[in-house]
Amino acid sequence: MPDLATTPEPPYYTVIFTSIRTPADPSGYEAMAERMLELARQQPGFLGVESARGADGLGITVSYWESEEAIRQWREHTEHLVAQSQGRSEWYARYELRVARVERAYGLK
Amino acid sequence: MPDLATTPEPPYYTVIFTSIRTPADPSGYEAMAERMLELARQQPGFLGVESARGADGLGITVSYWESEEAIRQWREHTEHLVAQSQGRSEWYARYELRVARVERAYGLK
Repeated sequence: MPDLATTPEPPYYTVIFTSIRTPADPSGYEAMAERMLELARQQPGFLGVESARGADGLGITVSYWESEEAIRQWREHTEHLVAQSQGRSEWYARYELRVARVERAYGLK
Repeated sequence: MPDLATTPEPPYYTVIFTSIRTPADPSGYEAMAERMLELARQQPGFLGVESARGADGLGITVSYWESEEAIRQWREHTEHLVAQSQGRSEWYARYELRVARVERAYGLK
């Protein structure tokens, strides 16, 4: 059973990463995606992450962060930079990355 | 082939809706989900939407809007209110809804 991220009261920040995969290297991609989730969880200021890829190939990963500075540091993490480069050259046909400030939140538990 | 949303230069607003489905009523849910996407596209201030549900049952729908007022109007749309109510009582085991202001964006085309 999957779980949703548990985040504090806003404000906090989010990175919305939406992507369409190429057909290339599914096992290499899966391994790197798991490694990046594991590594992200260890970063200062990390609050949570939610990720889904539909049967049509569209993927969405939303990560939550304490500050824009935490996002900047994660973007520049050495191992993450290698993954980003391989993503651009091989794994992604297209992606969009949006950084946003969460203003309010509510849910059904 | 799926497509990503094409959005203008920030700032604009986003609603990040993450959910876990109950096992109830898959065909009724699918029909309503499609109808809500169709209806959202017709709303004033709508900019785009991306949606994915993974094999583990976690779903993410991210919609983009010109303003917080456009989001408020969509939330209170009569037909959408009916869908929200049925979502809470029947279709969703859990959900989180976050409203955020997109500050910057970039991508790989």
